[in-house]
Amino acid sequence: MTTLDLSADAVTLTEQLVNIESVSGNERAIADAVEVALRALPHLTVTRRGDTVVARTELGRGERVVIAGHLDTVPLNDNLPARREDGVLHGLGTCDMKGGDAVILRLAATVPEPNRDVTYILYEAEEIEAEFNGLNLLAQSDPGLMVADFAILMEPSGAIVEAGCQGTMRVDVTTVGERAHSARSWKGVNAIHGAADVLTRLNAFEERRPLIDGLEYREGLNAVFIAGGVAGNVLPDECVVSVNYRFAPDRSEAEAEQFLREFFDGYEVTVRDSAPGAVPGLGLPAAKAFVEAVGGEVRPKFGWTDVARFSALGVPAVNFGPGDPMLAHKQEEHVPMAHIETCERELRRWLGGES
Amino acid sequence: MTTLDLSADAVTLTEQLVNIESVSGNERAIADAVEVALRALPHLTVTRRGDTVVARTELGRGERVVIAGHLDTVPLNDNLPARREDGVLHGLGTCDMKGGDAVILRLAATVPEPNRDVTYILYEAEEIEAEFNGLNLLAQSDPGLMVADFAILMEPSGAIVEAGCQGTMRVDVTTVGERAHSARSWKGVNAIHGAADVLTRLNAFEERRPLIDGLEYREGLNAVFIAGGVAGNVLPDECVVSVNYRFAPDRSEAEAEQFLREFFDGYEVTVRDSAPGAVPGLGLPAAKAFVEAVGGEVRPKFGWTDVARFSALGVPAVNFGPGDPMLAHKQEEHVPMAHIETCERELRRWLGGES
Repeated sequence: MTTLDLSADAVTLTEQLVNIESVSGNERAIADAVEVALRALPHLTVTRRGDTVVARTELGRGERVVIAGHLDTVPLNDNLPARREDGVLHGLGTCDMKGGDAVILRLAATVPEPNRDVTYILYEAEEIEAEFNGLNLLAQSDPGLMVADFAILMEPSGAIVEAGCQGTMRVDVTTVGERAHSARSWKGVNAIHGAADVLTRLNAFEERRPLIDGLEYREGLNAVFIAGGVAGNVLPDECVVSVNYRFAPDRSEAEAEQFLREFFDGYEVTVRDSAPGAVPGLGLPAAKAFVEAVGGEVRPKFGWTDVARFSALGVPAVNFGPGDPMLAHKQEEHVPMAHIETCERELRRWLGGES
Repeated sequence: MTTLDLSADAVTLTEQLVNIESVSGNERAIADAVEVALRALPHLTVTRRGDTVVARTELGRGERVVIAGHLDTVPLNDNLPARREDGVLHGLGTCDMKGGDAVILRLAATVPEPNRDVTYILYEAEEIEAEFNGLNLLAQSDPGLMVADFAILMEPSGAIVEAGCQGTMRVDVTTVGERAHSARSWKGVNAIHGAADVLTRLNAFEERRPLIDGLEYREGLNAVFIAGGVAGNVLPDECVVSVNYRFAPDRSEAEAEQFLREFFDGYEVTVRDSAPGAVPGLGLPAAKAFVEAVGGEVRPKFGWTDVARFSALGVPAVNFGPGDPMLAHKQEEHVPMAHIETCERELRRWLGGES
């Protein structure tokens, strides 16, 4: 088993974490290493559930914050081991999100008496179906461990606070027709031709850009799949357009569905999956204090992240981690070492640790 | 081996042929039975190529006609053996086209001295790729056996002459875009949305209805497949619309392609397959005489059939067989016994046989 050296700097620790391959479903080794390292710290109470490790200070502070990062990565793409070059660390998981995990481990080891109680969560299976997600499982098995006044997810956000997140809903819009031999097409109704209207409506979509807590969100409505066809000589009787709606967090899932049903009025609309957004919650004291502590710059988050899980539990949450979110899941994934250092420094200061 | 009884009536003979299963690729048994039965007739010269059997009279008449039918069927669909009910014969191949094959065998056996020389062709693999088609192979191996002044294909046509056939061309029309995460869709270009214009053009297609030899043909332009999509959270960079153009036989394949390239101007158009139409050729003496002999009623043929192969060889050809062409390839395929009897009676009279 790899022994993690929590006295090393956060970049070196990131490198160690990256070199423990942990594609979703294969997090045992990294979770073991993390658990052993955290259990060695007498000021933390450690709980393990599956391959999710939770470490808490229990100092009786007036406020508790969660700082969380997932341990898994998307599949290998010939991008291990980690490689340093010109102030940048390259490799699978450097950006999404072992740089953030290293920051968590460094804070856990070096801030034994934070000014607010901290629950560090390093969890499994964020990159796959929600049913396996470590935070999701923890909220079911040990809801008490999720309780907090505020949560920070170390998702890559360019070391700047990204607040809230947009919701996402996928629906199938189905057009129907009537089969006929293509040599006698007047005897049928072509369902693919019927999809012209669906696509024309999508082209006419006007994005909402609501301002929420001072942040401008920007919606999107896009066909992500289209499929129809029976045989090369048959007019198809069905065409399915799969549409992904990314909606600003001032809209609930029910409102999003209602909007889609009106938008595609006249067609069969089936909801395939859905996840709510998260309002930034920047008016809440804990969030406000955090944003001020790390410099005041905040951007809206467009992609969906686990902040929505905390939001659903009533815990305001933000993304704040090293790395460019656009590089997540890319073969050439990498992280500027300075991002890792910035995140560690600012979080340590906020927790009242020595700088 | 089943022994075919050519002295039986044509309906009984149809039943015998239907009960020799002969899905494309499995025509050996039926071709053996047909070959043995035809070789027993001293007035015919028989040639076998693969599972195609050719039998010719060689009486030195001033005119030669081909009468042809394929021996294969589409796949079984729980529709064998043959079953009689209320003047109708049910089962795989009854309509497409063993009723016609039975008429051919009856004529071969019972009209030893026709008033025009006849080449009877019973061939393999009409229902699958053209490269296996028995007529296609015969035209290559023994072009002399295809020479004739006129050809009759026993394809189901409701026992009425169906003349000519429309051409068919399949093209892929491709729209291109630029991938982006659906949470930040303004960074990409959605290729599925781009297909709205392709489908709108298809909806605006105005069919040509040219009059050729007094018959009105009716074109069709239809999307038969559509496909696009990368992942549930990605704007796709490509969408392919597969379009089938059925064109009247006054238009060549080159003209059809030219039309499609202009119609989809601005998009990548790739021809996937193509087959020429066949003009009815009803002005030609042999065709004219045949139509008059069988009652004068002629309809245009919309679907593509092997008459186009004869047409390409300079041989005017028509479809004239028992059964409703709309029932071909259907599970509930069947043929009215009266159609079989009508076709046999009219062809026998035309060939100068005893009625």
